[in-house]
Amino acid sequence: MITLSSDFGSPYPAAMRGVLLSADPQVRLVDVAHDLPRQDVRAAAFWTRFVLPEFPPAVHLLVVDPGVGTDRAALVVRAGDHAIVAPDNGVALPAARALAVDSSVEVFAYDYDDPASNTFHGRDVFAPAAAAVHGVGVSRVEEFDSVSPVDEYVDLRLPVSETTDRTAYGEVLVVDDFGNAITNVPGAFLTEVERVRVNGESVPVGDSFASVAEGERLVTVGSHGNVECDVNRGRGDEAFGLSAGDTVRIERVE
Amino acid sequence: MITLSSDFGSPYPAAMRGVLLSADPQVRLVDVAHDLPRQDVRAAAFWTRFVLPEFPPAVHLLVVDPGVGTDRAALVVRAGDHAIVAPDNGVALPAARALAVDSSVEVFAYDYDDPASNTFHGRDVFAPAAAAVHGVGVSRVEEFDSVSPVDEYVDLRLPVSETTDRTAYGEVLVVDDFGNAITNVPGAFLTEVERVRVNGESVPVGDSFASVAEGERLVTVGSHGNVECDVNRGRGDEAFGLSAGDTVRIERVE
Amino acid sequence: MITLSSDFGSPYPAAMRGVLLSADPQVRLVDVAHDLPRQDVRAAAFWTRFVLPEFPPAVHLLVVDPGVGTDRAALVVRAGDHAIVAPDNGVALPAARALAVDSSVEVFAYDYDDPASNTFHGRDVFAPAAAAVHGVGVSRVEEFDSVSPVDEYVDLRLPVSETTDRTAYGEVLVVDDFGNAITNVPGAFLTEVERVRVNGESVPVGDSFASVAEGERLVTVGSHGNVECDVNRGRGDEAFGLSAGDTVRIERVE
Repeated sequence: MITLSSDFGSPYPAAMRGVLLSADPQVRLVDVAHDLPRQDVRAAAFWTRFVLPEFPPAVHLLVVDPGVGTDRAALVVRAGDHAIVAPDNGVALPAARALAVDSSVEVFAYDYDDPASNTFHGRDVFAPAAAAVHGVGVSRVEEFDSVSPVDEYVDLRLPVSETTDRTAYGEVLVVDDFGNAITNVPGAFLTEVERVRVNGESVPVGDSFASVAEGERLVTVGSHGNVECDVNRGRGDEAFGLSAGDTVRIERVE
Repeated sequence: MITLSSDFGSPYPAAMRGVLLSADPQVRLVDVAHDLPRQDVRAAAFWTRFVLPEFPPAVHLLVVDPGVGTDRAALVVRAGDHAIVAPDNGVALPAARALAVDSSVEVFAYDYDDPASNTFHGRDVFAPAAAAVHGVGVSRVEEFDSVSPVDEYVDLRLPVSETTDRTAYGEVLVVDDFGNAITNVPGAFLTEVERVRVNGESVPVGDSFASVAEGERLVTVGSHGNVECDVNRGRGDEAFGLSAGDTVRIERVE
Repeated sequence: MITLSSDFGSPYPAAMRGVLLSADPQVRLVDVAHDLPRQDVRAAAFWTRFVLPEFPPAVHLLVVDPGVGTDRAALVVRAGDHAIVAPDNGVALPAARALAVDSSVEVFAYDYDDPASNTFHGRDVFAPAAAAVHGVGVSRVEEFDSVSPVDEYVDLRLPVSETTDRTAYGEVLVVDDFGNAITNVPGAFLTEVERVRVNGESVPVGDSFASVAEGERLVTVGSHGNVECDVNRGRGDEAFGLSAGDTVRIERVE
């Protein structure tokens, strides 16, 4: 099984599907998403860390690659029975650590020849690499000539919030399609809290969207375990004035 | 085979794919759509009633769920060789009746434990339920411990138009991606009619978009069998000033 | 294997998936794209010429069909081990020639009965035709009763640029999701050129997006082999003021 994640929109991902199927017409392909926020390595890291652990063992092709055409390396990051094939810009590391039982990952460089283009390494470098890794098998990646262990690579860790007794200082990691502003504040911060101030404005803490009236704001713990700023049947990003990258200060109100 | 329909946008549906594949790595998954009009139970009922009958026997996972996190039940609705797994808000019933040979459906509650989140029951409740139903087999759903027949559930019937000799009083059910305003007036109302008035404005009845010049309005019978208000190579919703939920009065012009 | 390409948006493609799976529940389906520029036969021809050659032998269902409901024919275009099933409006020819080893293609008409609708031949004509071609096998298409060779059909050739010693006169074929304005000027025109004027404005030629600073314009050779007008991490169409169909004059600057 090979999963596909990118910021390529459409129809570029189809070229990757074609390459993968030409390498192995029997391989199972599963799209994760191809509308990840464009050239936003951190957002791609967040979403794949969220989604990939739901999958059974697989090779995960993950291409969000602002450095396409430069000499940045192609990586194979092994995490237990999974492998992520991605550019060396840190995008694969958060998901890989989430996939590995003990967060221990192995990082390999994938050596590629001069690719056919400088603008579409998804087709010309990463899809062939994912097909090759899938062909040889995740457990035997090191037997593969084009692959060699590396110690130096770009790492990425999603920012962690700072929490005092009553206040969490965090950041909006992404805004989802519903407009929910997903922060990096751990959900545990809301345990037994009924009301908070978000950047100074008082809002209720809810168990679910429906815990407030339609159109009303709330703060809740999302399915990723983080605090998010939402509106029941509306857009939290607009109601709270929050975008990806904005800081949030969340205070417990007694 | 499991089909997937939701209003989740992206990348949330990928988490459901992962759950389904973790339960059975061999299961065949087919996406119907994940951009159904957001939290619009009636539109989801219309579109799945339109699309699901094209499929061979399958389990259909259908999650448009404004009540996520409340205590609304999870349902398994059996219709012949098909089963729809959906929240108890009526969304499954129109498609289920269309799938059943004689419109007779069987409704079961799917008993679920405390889910991991209150905001993403697609991942935490409905995908596991669909995997379980697929595993046990649609014909043997009742042998499954978590499943029990229910008499009370939320039903939903799409509104029916009222038709007199010369006038149909209907409603726009949905606007499709092309901008076609699809009403609930049966196509038979246009039989041997060459011209109608839609909310007072005279427009031709056409067999196909191309029966009028580019940019011109027409009324035709869509592929769902209903009357729709269209523009050849343009947007009918804008030209007619119609949105989902609007009433339409269509008069035959002799 | 059957690939699917259309301008149908969502959820109409799901009806085609259902039809194909009802004909053969085992058939492998692969989506190319369903958001091809609406009713733009030339753009669909460009994109499928770009993408389909990446695929192993397959039946390619390709429906961009402004003439739906008129008496235009349905075609099966065979190109080596591939077949494209499409309306007779030229859309299939560029990809078919790219798929055929020597550009030689065979064109057949697919004879269809009165379809269930005049607005959705993707479901009612082309998906059944693709299923039938897949069932009988690409190499045996002519044994199939509904299929007969034709000499007359709508051909389409994407416009070719004219190039003098120092100047290429071309056209923007499509703008991709990134905003890159893809022209029909062959990439070879940029060989060993460091700077060009695009419609009079001087811009650098780059090997990759990253060869200029973020937000800066460049001209490069895209993954399709054509010259494209881009912005590093921005939209070339906006920065250059170019849309599909616009003419471009590209001059080498010594």
